[in-house]
Amino acid sequence: MRTTAAVAVEPGKPLEIMEVNLELPKAGEVLVEIKATGICHTDEFTRSGANKGGNFPVILGHEGAGVVVAVGENVSTLKPGDHVIPLYAPECRQCHACTTGKTNMCTAIRRNQDKGLLPDGTTRFSMLDGTPIHHYMGCSTFANHTVVAEISLAKIRKDAPFDKICYVGCGVTTGVGAVINTAGVEVGSTTAVFGLGGIGLNVIQGLRMAGADMIIGVDLNNDKREIAEKFGMTHFVNPAELDGQSVSEAIIEMSKTEEDDWGGVDYTFESTGNVHVMEEALKAAHRGWGESIVIGVPPSGQKLAAEPIQLLTGRVWKGTSFGGVRGRTEVPKYVDWYMDGKIEIDSMITHIMPLEDINKAFDLMHAGESIRSVVTFE
Amino acid sequence: MRTTAAVAVEPGKPLEIMEVNLELPKAGEVLVEIKATGICHTDEFTRSGANKGGNFPVILGHEGAGVVVAVGENVSTLKPGDHVIPLYAPECRQCHACTTGKTNMCTAIRRNQDKGLLPDGTTRFSMLDGTPIHHYMGCSTFANHTVVAEISLAKIRKDAPFDKICYVGCGVTTGVGAVINTAGVEVGSTTAVFGLGGIGLNVIQGLRMAGADMIIGVDLNNDKREIAEKFGMTHFVNPAELDGQSVSEAIIEMSKTEEDDWGGVDYTFESTGNVHVMEEALKAAHRGWGESIVIGVPPSGQKLAAEPIQLLTGRVWKGTSFGGVRGRTEVPKYVDWYMDGKIEIDSMITHIMPLEDINKAFDLMHAGESIRSVVTFE
Repeated sequence: MRTTAAVAVEPGKPLEIMEVNLELPKAGEVLVEIKATGICHTDEFTRSGANKGGNFPVILGHEGAGVVVAVGENVSTLKPGDHVIPLYAPECRQCHACTTGKTNMCTAIRRNQDKGLLPDGTTRFSMLDGTPIHHYMGCSTFANHTVVAEISLAKIRKDAPFDKICYVGCGVTTGVGAVINTAGVEVGSTTAVFGLGGIGLNVIQGLRMAGADMIIGVDLNNDKREIAEKFGMTHFVNPAELDGQSVSEAIIEMSKTEEDDWGGVDYTFESTGNVHVMEEALKAAHRGWGESIVIGVPPSGQKLAAEPIQLLTGRVWKGTSFGGVRGRTEVPKYVDWYMDGKIEIDSMITHIMPLEDINKAFDLMHAGESIRSVVTFE
Repeated sequence: MRTTAAVAVEPGKPLEIMEVNLELPKAGEVLVEIKATGICHTDEFTRSGANKGGNFPVILGHEGAGVVVAVGENVSTLKPGDHVIPLYAPECRQCHACTTGKTNMCTAIRRNQDKGLLPDGTTRFSMLDGTPIHHYMGCSTFANHTVVAEISLAKIRKDAPFDKICYVGCGVTTGVGAVINTAGVEVGSTTAVFGLGGIGLNVIQGLRMAGADMIIGVDLNNDKREIAEKFGMTHFVNPAELDGQSVSEAIIEMSKTEEDDWGGVDYTFESTGNVHVMEEALKAAHRGWGESIVIGVPPSGQKLAAEPIQLLTGRVWKGTSFGGVRGRTEVPKYVDWYMDGKIEIDSMITHIMPLEDINKAFDLMHAGESIRSVVTFE
């Protein structure tokens, strides 16, 4: 069959909207009609060429929602008409990683997924001249139709609006899951969130759900303050207005109490992808037990650095991928939480556009004018 | 009163054995007759001047055991004749850190302890000419008598031999506690230990106690293999004999199984104090859930460095201080474990000497000829 897609033909170039060939799903695969897709910094990380592991040409996009059109052989958990969210973190429930119960980092199809291929090592997309087009993160949602592995699809309820719950495919789940799964924040915790973009806001609403007492937001842009407060931020720090004090020092001062003259917060979350901010986030965690969760992805080749004493005195450094969420099992619950009003999404979807305008979404991202842009297919 | 001590008069010089003045214990303090003390790398870290936070002149030593001689006012938990182990990690049971239950890093007297002072901000030791001599880590066990805060003393059984259980005051507890408390190693875990000195051997016996299946030891010295195997090591890697492969790559290969073609171990422990080894230890931890515990203390100013992807793909970086052990509560149990044969100490005490010979202990340490030297007072 043919479908319409936004193709990244080479690194650093705008996406090109074109008709492409799409083969029908093979065994264990599913053909999905994408109804909506978010545009995420991770797509831009690959599009721009900053991700040295990128494969081109490629159909990007990993934050989508849609409807099953057809299933390949041996697909038992999905049927045409099912509503689904594609998962860049699959959940096979069979591999060593899945069966440990300790991680969401399924390894079943990981190596081929990283090469931009489906599990059998080939692609379903090609240009009209026959040139194969790579898949992206097992999803490729910047296309009206895509083929995805059965284990990379979460089946969700049918009454949820695609143009909102597509965001559950990455940003919402990453931020909220980092709080619930990776950090395991307890009621009454003190916390700080570095970076108040889409991920940061979702961390903040996760912290509110988890009952944190103190939620300090950190951003260089004072305009982020209002919306962050709506999501649950209790205190704000602009590092540019600190007059010589470091952010970690400011947070340590803010979190001192009569009982605790040491200061520092129980959990910090880093969503900027800046390695220097990551070090500050570690330092702002409380001596003895504070945990710092790295969420942002820095440019290839940059390294974390920290004084070992930060760890030796009891801080814990962790990272998260897809918020530690096992997608097939937990993503349907996130959609329920949205439908029940426990998770707020609508106000974060700042721009909706057709596929033809997808390059504007990257412009809005760079200009800092969007929280999340979503492409819908009508 | 007067007592005999080994004094570090200035950084980088041998210790000087001399008579010193010792004031009687003030409120909340206890006079202890030291019966035996180990000589640890941390003492050498300060003696040599590598620790930029060192205070001089100072009576070093933090790995001792002895008998209470007298108590100051308001001391309620100890009396003359009690056997004790001094604790560089006090346990006041009252401060915010203690009452959280999340850490052993009591803050009650921390700031003055770091300055080489007792909790009231003064010293009890002075030279015969009146020059004050700093305390060290709240212990100063390189003296026949010392004054220690009540909250910095663990009361232990009277039938335990001082020249063995003094090692519980640091090395044994740090290594075993890192396994039990900081990592929380489960039965059946796969593990690796970097550095097979005193701490590494104690990590290994902790892993054996905790029921680890695979205990990989890493050291540049093949002579360490025999004793490490006695303590429970199951596999050995000499990084100098790997033929181009990194240590982490070797460990990942060794730990692959039929079910797990990804490799990496559940827990790694770093006891060399080398920041490059710390990075290798993190990489050798299993993608998705592996934890790496930093125990060794590198020279001042050196930083940890790692690719953020190591954390983002689910590894956890932690440090430990005194093995996460709350000293007054848990150290008596460690002494019981030694007396019950669950913990092996005797074969690690390779040299016993009088205080007059204490500088030989540092020579043996540098020559790699000792695991632990102990000074006894007769």
